[in-house]
Amino acid sequence: MELYVERGYENTTVADIADRAGLTARTFFRYFADKREVLFAGSLALQEAMAAALDGAPASAAPFDAVAGALDASAVWLDGDRAYAARRQSVIAANAELRERELIKMASLAGALTEGLRRRGVAEPDASLAAEAGIAVFRIAFHRWVRDSEERELALVMRECLQQMRALTAQRD
Amino acid sequence: MELYVERGYENTTVADIADRAGLTARTFFRYFADKREVLFAGSLALQEAMAAALDGAPASAAPFDAVAGALDASAVWLDGDRAYAARRQSVIAANAELRERELIKMASLAGALTEGLRRRGVAEPDASLAAEAGIAVFRIAFHRWVRDSEERELALVMRECLQQMRALTAQRD
Repeated sequence: MELYVERGYENTTVADIADRAGLTARTFFRYFADKREVLFAGSLALQEAMAAALDGAPASAAPFDAVAGALDASAVWLDGDRAYAARRQSVIAANAELRERELIKMASLAGALTEGLRRRGVAEPDASLAAEAGIAVFRIAFHRWVRDSEERELALVMRECLQQMRALTAQRD
Repeated sequence: MELYVERGYENTTVADIADRAGLTARTFFRYFADKREVLFAGSLALQEAMAAALDGAPASAAPFDAVAGALDASAVWLDGDRAYAARRQSVIAANAELRERELIKMASLAGALTEGLRRRGVAEPDASLAAEAGIAVFRIAFHRWVRDSEERELALVMRECLQQMRALTAQRD
């Protein structure tokens, strides 16, 4: 990651990364499918933490409340090193390939939440709608959190965005 | 598009497409950046139609109501040839590259709605949240509409999904 910040993502090779980490290129590829994956290494674990939170929500919880629990779990997972997250995000923002990879990871996260809601007995389109709305909150809150001007914990920013989503889409009467 | 259905997207070259359409490859590239773009040729016009609907919503309209108007406009734009839309969607679903391109188009659509809401004076994170929730409704409704079992007009499916989104995220009291 540091190399991506120093040299730019495009100018960093797998050999450079392996060298900095004291690995051979061969060992590198045992851990990562390609150099993009270095930046998304934690995403499967995050997805599993969010799915576990969904599964653990009370059976009586409404779909979007269960999603809210998964968002809380994601904040626990990601909170902490905001400076690292900000550097990582600036590398991603500067490269079209990485922005695409991020979109794919977000779609995969939404798919995992949709599956989790279906396991809870939520029918379609509700499962997809609640999952996609949750991932929208996740992404927007995360991007706000890594901004220089945002000093609060991710969990707080996430809850505030969730509350705003509820208010914005509130039923008219 | 017909060639993609007949031969598979991977087995169709730009030369094949140009030949079927009676064009040279050179002329093809004057209209499309690459062979993926053939499937997404209407997406900029759709984006403009949705942005125009946002701009045309009453100044007093709440952000998500303005987004709902943009979704209505998208349905007017896309309604009609469901069989074509279904074939196109099956080509996209079968190819990872095309699924990625679709994610990028959806992100671009969400960006256009976010910009449109900002022009209406909506602050962040509300503009992004309302836009992303709207695009989630758009994508889920569109995918339902192209399914074999769905015979209703897109506009109806879109409104039903929008209503479900409102109900799911409704404020608890």
